[in-house]
Amino acid sequence: MLLRTLGSAAGGGFPQWNCACHNCIGVRAGTLPAKSRSQSQLAVSADGRSWYLLGASPDLRAQIEATPALHPHHGVRQSPIAGIVLASADLDHVLGLLFLRELQPLRVYATPSTQRILREDNTAFRMLNRVEPQVEWTDFLPGNSFPLSSVGGDESGLRIEAISLGEHYPAYVSPERSAALVAGEASLGLILTSHGKAAGYFPAVPRMDDELLAKLDTLDLLFFDGTFWSDDELIRVQGAGQTSLQMGHTPVSSAGGSLDRLAALRKPRKIFVHINNTNPMLDESSVEHRQVHDAGWEIAEDGWQFEL
Amino acid sequence: MLLRTLGSAAGGGFPQWNCACHNCIGVRAGTLPAKSRSQSQLAVSADGRSWYLLGASPDLRAQIEATPALHPHHGVRQSPIAGIVLASADLDHVLGLLFLRELQPLRVYATPSTQRILREDNTAFRMLNRVEPQVEWTDFLPGNSFPLSSVGGDESGLRIEAISLGEHYPAYVSPERSAALVAGEASLGLILTSHGKAAGYFPAVPRMDDELLAKLDTLDLLFFDGTFWSDDELIRVQGAGQTSLQMGHTPVSSAGGSLDRLAALRKPRKIFVHINNTNPMLDESSVEHRQVHDAGWEIAEDGWQFEL
Repeated sequence: MLLRTLGSAAGGGFPQWNCACHNCIGVRAGTLPAKSRSQSQLAVSADGRSWYLLGASPDLRAQIEATPALHPHHGVRQSPIAGIVLASADLDHVLGLLFLRELQPLRVYATPSTQRILREDNTAFRMLNRVEPQVEWTDFLPGNSFPLSSVGGDESGLRIEAISLGEHYPAYVSPERSAALVAGEASLGLILTSHGKAAGYFPAVPRMDDELLAKLDTLDLLFFDGTFWSDDELIRVQGAGQTSLQMGHTPVSSAGGSLDRLAALRKPRKIFVHINNTNPMLDESSVEHRQVHDAGWEIAEDGWQFEL
Repeated sequence: MLLRTLGSAAGGGFPQWNCACHNCIGVRAGTLPAKSRSQSQLAVSADGRSWYLLGASPDLRAQIEATPALHPHHGVRQSPIAGIVLASADLDHVLGLLFLRELQPLRVYATPSTQRILREDNTAFRMLNRVEPQVEWTDFLPGNSFPLSSVGGDESGLRIEAISLGEHYPAYVSPERSAALVAGEASLGLILTSHGKAAGYFPAVPRMDDELLAKLDTLDLLFFDGTFWSDDELIRVQGAGQTSLQMGHTPVSSAGGSLDRLAALRKPRKIFVHINNTNPMLDESSVEHRQVHDAGWEIAEDGWQFEL
């Protein structure tokens, strides 16, 4: 199984367009020992020829161009990208779908609830179904394992299992609409398996229980929610706002944070993704950066490659 | 008046993610004398401090980061971008709005018809109105001239006049919805004036009449629809598809094309924008490229700056 981090930042990217915090100013000026990052995006393949995207980030056009494995090789309307698996209806996770509308056959896997939000409540997504064949929307449910295949039916050699993590739909979904959706389909973690190896993508984890921890310890590679360092991070930087947990993200530090709760994991290589521009661990000279590395974690950068 | 071309390509950009045509293969490999381009986007300012965007392209995040004049200078939730003027509801022209959702006060000028499509038919745009102050939607009608101002009421020193150009709404708008909208609000050209100088942005021009030509000849600077070289360009490259005129774009060449019809313009500096990846004039060694320059036109690139 081949994996690539096309992007590694949280929504807004790093730096963020309307932010002049310590991190954003420093990375723009080149005075902070930190790397700019586009918004979180993973690509995975079993054979190096046919690729599947986990989510479709708002930076997807530039992310594809930065990744030669995803370039078309001949003709027009051709791409090594065979499909996309959606873990939520968050705009940072789905807007890139609208950049893939150039009449390309693609299979998009999404829960029935996510499909209702995108296809019934947002007419822009009709651009994905103007011709035949174009996007084939394919249902899946959390808890089931299913194989990934192209619109033409080619098996990828990859299987996915989705884990239900959060029950909150994005802020643009009305309370009435949310009430008509299935809570357990709101926000998922994705586990990919191929040839006996397993990788997990968990960019938004509002809480952890022992069952989830046991599951994570079966993985060979774990990409985990590294959005915020501390629960009150945004409030301290901005002077107001929500806590990390209120936004559906377990903070990295503090009691009950991911460094603490996941310290007991024995098996997986552990990598933080979906890192917000305000997170102090982005500064490679910071004590937070060192603390994460000392705890056996890595902090994802754009363009990293993995082979399992 | 200061203007910048943040992007200069048509929808999909150059190269385009699922295209391996002569141009796209060559620019990716570095073997074609041509420059990659992000999707068309203009920014304008009267004072160099407060900027207005014409449209909001899908590449807007990277375009802002590539333009120091648009970077925030202090604090969080701060930006030199004060507002956006929408010429249509085309996704290539509006999706970038959804990247500007980080709780920033912005004035968005749009026709009532464009607002109905975005705000009533696409719940994702609710992310622009989660707090106060955030986006203030402001009506305008084609044919009227109006001043641009920030949410706080600061006058920009810029005025806009919109010219009705096309009557077709984007393909994602249903026929029933289109029938309930005002045809003349579908697709606009934008004329900016400041201190006696005038610049026009006309990235999608389905037809030209003498009245429009007379208007264009009052401008100092003209950004004009350079999408396709010839009417059957896409059909020849792809083997199928629509003509340039069917897609709402006057081709550059041929009788009735823009080189022909706009040859008589005396006043404006003439620049093609919104150039499709298949357009042969992107190849700087091509006869088409030379023909355009010999006719007194320029072919826009990303990052060009103008002062009027």
